[in-house]
Amino acid sequence: MRKALVPLEPGSTIGILGGGQLGRMLALAAARLGFNVHIFCPDENSPAFKVAEKSYPYEYEDEDALAKFAQATDVITYEFENVPAQTAAFLSSRTALHPSTRALKVAQNRLAEREFLASNDIAIAPFAAISCQQDLERSLAEIGTPAVLKAQTLGYDGKGQAVIKNSEEIPKALASIGNVPAILEAFIPFEREISVIIARTPSGEISAYDPGENQHVNHILDKTIIPANITSETLEKAITTARNIAEALDYVGVLAVEMFICERPGFEPLYVNEIAPRVHNSGHWTQDACLTDQFEQHIRAICGWPLGPVQRHSDAVMKNLIGDDFYQWPQFAAMDDHCVHLYGKTKVRAARKMGHVNQIIPRKNTN
Amino acid sequence: MRKALVPLEPGSTIGILGGGQLGRMLALAAARLGFNVHIFCPDENSPAFKVAEKSYPYEYEDEDALAKFAQATDVITYEFENVPAQTAAFLSSRTALHPSTRALKVAQNRLAEREFLASNDIAIAPFAAISCQQDLERSLAEIGTPAVLKAQTLGYDGKGQAVIKNSEEIPKALASIGNVPAILEAFIPFEREISVIIARTPSGEISAYDPGENQHVNHILDKTIIPANITSETLEKAITTARNIAEALDYVGVLAVEMFICERPGFEPLYVNEIAPRVHNSGHWTQDACLTDQFEQHIRAICGWPLGPVQRHSDAVMKNLIGDDFYQWPQFAAMDDHCVHLYGKTKVRAARKMGHVNQIIPRKNTN
Repeated sequence: MRKALVPLEPGSTIGILGGGQLGRMLALAAARLGFNVHIFCPDENSPAFKVAEKSYPYEYEDEDALAKFAQATDVITYEFENVPAQTAAFLSSRTALHPSTRALKVAQNRLAEREFLASNDIAIAPFAAISCQQDLERSLAEIGTPAVLKAQTLGYDGKGQAVIKNSEEIPKALASIGNVPAILEAFIPFEREISVIIARTPSGEISAYDPGENQHVNHILDKTIIPANITSETLEKAITTARNIAEALDYVGVLAVEMFICERPGFEPLYVNEIAPRVHNSGHWTQDACLTDQFEQHIRAICGWPLGPVQRHSDAVMKNLIGDDFYQWPQFAAMDDHCVHLYGKTKVRAARKMGHVNQIIPRKNTN
Repeated sequence: MRKALVPLEPGSTIGILGGGQLGRMLALAAARLGFNVHIFCPDENSPAFKVAEKSYPYEYEDEDALAKFAQATDVITYEFENVPAQTAAFLSSRTALHPSTRALKVAQNRLAEREFLASNDIAIAPFAAISCQQDLERSLAEIGTPAVLKAQTLGYDGKGQAVIKNSEEIPKALASIGNVPAILEAFIPFEREISVIIARTPSGEISAYDPGENQHVNHILDKTIIPANITSETLEKAITTARNIAEALDYVGVLAVEMFICERPGFEPLYVNEIAPRVHNSGHWTQDACLTDQFEQHIRAICGWPLGPVQRHSDAVMKNLIGDDFYQWPQFAAMDDHCVHLYGKTKVRAARKMGHVNQIIPRKNTN
């Protein structure tokens, strides 16, 4: 069993599971630091393949291909949390895998995530495990309405979720998520959602970017605004919360923590909504407003390098180009304060993330 | 004969001749904008191959390979000015080639370059064409000493040059450059060397970064410092000069213009020393101090996109990592104000450019 040297020398090879835009931007950042990149992804048209030294267009269950991938790489990471558990276990028995299989396990099951957070005294919405209609009836009575039913696995961009306003909606809600194992959560009447993008190295060095404020359209992230409209007290609490999570997981890499900010009496000021063990859409603003972006930071962390500076030189508004938004690229390319990032996807499809733009705004003097 | 559409759509394919660090950084910038990149370079170990969709490891004289390369790409550019004339002519008859064969011709022969500059009233050192020892004896008497003998072709990083302090040194100087056709130039007692990195689009839009000041060690660029220590009058004159050159060449792409700044009476304030029809080492600071760097700017220009913003948000000092300097990467990676760029070259060799670091310094308030 080979383990990555710490720190990993430039010229080493980084393996990435997943060939979408996050894998592609990780590959570009790794190349800047002199690393070689191999991408493993079943989709033959993966945009990340086009910027990598080597591509593995195989299923995640193909252990022959995985063995070759592990043999050829010095450290492996991933762009998505739904890496099959068996794949992660297979690879981590052969080479260094960051973030760890434990982080994956916690992040890919909402019940495991909630239990992990609760056991570490992280503020989250009241929740209950749901495996049948009776569970749901009982838990809805305890938690009250409105509440949110969420499938335990494979949810993203609002998929696998249903809001329940009264008990009559129970059968419809269960059916809408496909009657799979779920959790029920109290609905938090939040004022805003923020993300903390934090990185941790194998030696325990930790560094967080300032939180961004997320705005969604149709349950998909539309904009992230930096700085978030929060008090310095809330900012500090948010970063401490993210730090506690990273430390409790003995985490290595970039971790995204979504939080709800609540200003009503009777509620916590801040609830953790979701954790993602990877670079995150809400951290794309760092590409143009910071000296080290989240992609380079992730590569530095998994390679055992010191973390880069996280201070921002500018404020920013990141906007996703989703589906037909893609065709607006000429307008954005002509703007003096926008940086354009396009993902090289061959087909424009509705709800597909095609690119993003970062509007860069001089920082207000905060002396 | 296909011509590139203007502007070229993301998803199009850009061909790059040359697979060194400049080709690699061009490829990374093109990928950010959603382009595919093919690299043509005879060296099988080209670092740019590792970040490109397709590699052509063939000789520049291999017209079968060149024809396939031209067929597969929508526009072709290059990372070095010594592209063989026949190669450039072959490609430009088949697809769009930027910068043009005319720019190449001017830049790859010092006599052609000097004649072009002189005919456009650009200030340069007095010069003469040298094809034999008698030419040199006569010209040295006219131009005076010290003077500099420079081979007409294939000179870079101080190669193919000899300073002549008196007429006794003539035979040695001629021998040192291999008795090839040359030019003799008056030695300019300059205070400093600066570079202007300027870009021009097919529609004539022009934009220049602020000049950087270059410091050399052993005739190889060691540092570029931004801003250059020059008056605003000299700055304006430098940019006007670069603009005049770009316009006279009907240039498309990024052009680097090296200039000598002279503060002595009896001399011009500014002499053009050299032009390079490509991205340039002295423009690497733009990667971390500007919203659009020189690599993206070149891609934008050759694709007929609008140019990006050139204002810098920070001052900067770029330092090359040459040969064994490479091994200092851990120190630089640990510094909070340095951005590290490594080129993925497999072997460290003396005088080989292995990477660079950009120190980023908050701008002094200039209101």
